Amino acid sequence: MTVYLVGAGPGDPGLITVRGLELVRSCDAIVYDRLVSPELVAAAPPEAIRIGRARLGQAELDELLVRLGRRGLEVVRLKGGDPFVFGRGGEEALALAAAGIPFEVVPGVSALSAVPASAGIPVTHRGVSSQVTVVSGHDERTLDLAALARVPGTLVLFMGLASLAAVAEGLVRHGKPADTPAAVVASGTLPEQETVIAPLAEIARAASSLASPALIVIGDVVALRGRLAAHEPLGVVAA
Amino acid sequence: MTVYLVGAGPGDPGLITVRGLELVRSCDAIVYDRLVSPELVAAAPPEAIRIGRARLGQAELDELLVRLGRRGLEVVRLKGGDPFVFGRGGEEALALAAAGIPFEVVPGVSALSAVPASAGIPVTHRGVSSQVTVVSGHDERTLDLAALARVPGTLVLFMGLASLAAVAEGLVRHGKPADTPAAVVASGTLPEQETVIAPLAEIARAASSLASPALIVIGDVVALRGRLAAHEPLGVVAA
Repeated sequence: MTVYLVGAGPGDPGLITVRGLELVRSCDAIVYDRLVSPELVAAAPPEAIRIGRARLGQAELDELLVRLGRRGLEVVRLKGGDPFVFGRGGEEALALAAAGIPFEVVPGVSALSAVPASAGIPVTHRGVSSQVTVVSGHDERTLDLAALARVPGTLVLFMGLASLAAVAEGLVRHGKPADTPAAVVASGTLPEQETVIAPLAEIARAASSLASPALIVIGDVVALRGRLAAHEPLGVVAA
Repeated sequence: MTVYLVGAGPGDPGLITVRGLELVRSCDAIVYDRLVSPELVAAAPPEAIRIGRARLGQAELDELLVRLGRRGLEVVRLKGGDPFVFGRGGEEALALAAAGIPFEVVPGVSALSAVPASAGIPVTHRGVSSQVTVVSGHDERTLDLAALARVPGTLVLFMGLASLAAVAEGLVRHGKPADTPAAVVASGTLPEQETVIAPLAEIARAASSLASPALIVIGDVVALRGRLAAHEPLGVVAA
C-alpha cells in the first residue's frame, strides 16, 4: 500500500513521466485534479476506483487519501504539473506522513517552463536571463510588487489572470519598464492553447479574452518568441 | 526531418516524459549530454547514430545539429533536465531556426523541483513559501547577493557547488539570517543521491565532500524535510 503523488505535467498527456504513467496503469485507485487530461485518467485499469477531486476541499482530500491508503490500495494522486510547484503536494504528503501511510512523490513537468516553451519562450537564455522568479499571482495583495519590479531576469506568475491588471500596473508604478515584453499563455501545451504578447503596460487589456488556466511570463525572454515559434502544434515548439 | 530538443529529466531515467522516450525509441540520431542516463541512450534504435556531446563546444554542437537535420534525419538532442531551464536549449533552437531546420522542444522534468522533492523538500508550501527564485550559481560575481538576500520564499541555485561558500557568506553578510535552513542535493533522483542539510552559515563546510551535479536550496521549506523524508529511494520521496 502506497499513495503516489504523481505530477501529470502541464496538460498534453504525452508530457507525463514514464514512471508516472506506469503507476497510473497499475493503480487500484486514482484521485485526479480537474485539469488533468482525461486520457491519463482513462489509462488507469478499468476496475480502478476513479475519484475527481473537483468538489473536495483540501482537508477532505487529505482525509480521502489517508482512507484509501489505509485500505491497503495502491493509490495514484494525479496532480496537474508538478506536485511541489504550487501543487499543494506538500500538504498531502504531510497528511499521509502524519497518518503513517507510505507515500512517494513522482515529479512532473511543471507549467513553469513547459508552458512558456510551448509558446516559443525559454525562461532562461544566455545573455538575456539567468534568473527566474516564480510566484503565485492569485492575490496581488500578497505580492511585494516593489521588490518584484526590481528583480532581474524572468518573472513567471501562476494563477495570475484575474489579478493581471493590478499586478502589471503595480510593477510599472514601481519602476518596471512599461515596454517590458510580456506573455499570457492560456491552456498551454493543449490543442486549444492561446498566446497573447504585449508590452507589460498593455498586457492585461490585450489578454482580456483569455481564460484560466493561464501562465504569465514577463521579461526580455518573451521577445525571443518571434525567432522561435512560427506556429504552435500540440505541446511543442516548431520552427 | 526534425530535430527534437528533448528534456531527459533530472537523472532517474523513469522521469523522462512518455513523448520524449517515444522520440528516443524511433530516432535516427541521438546527441546526448554527459549527465543523461545511459539507459535512455540505450533505448535508441541499435542502428541510430549516437554522439556524446561532452567534447563539443556550444557552437560545434549547434553546427552538428544543423548538419544532422540537413541530412534529413530524425534527430533527438537529449538534454539533462528541461531544455529551457539553464539548458541552453534556446541557443540550439535559435541555431536550428536560423538554418531553417524544423525543430520541436519537448519539455522535461527540471531538477528545479524534482531534486528537492527527491530529498523531501517542496519548493513551495502553503504558509511557508509562495515564491521561488532560481539562479545559476556557477559564478557568484554575476549574482546580486544583496538583492537575493532579501527575496522571500525559496532560493534555488543550479551549478552552485563551487561558489557555495562565497554565495552563502554573501547572503548572510547582506542580511539573510545565518540560521536559514539550507540543503545541498548531489546526484538528485539517482541511486547515489546525497543530501546535506545545515544552517546557511554552515552549509558550505557541511557539504564540502559532495560533488557536482548538485542543486542548492535555501529557505524555510528545507525544514519540512524532517517531516517528509525518512529515507530516499530512487527518484522518489517515501514516508
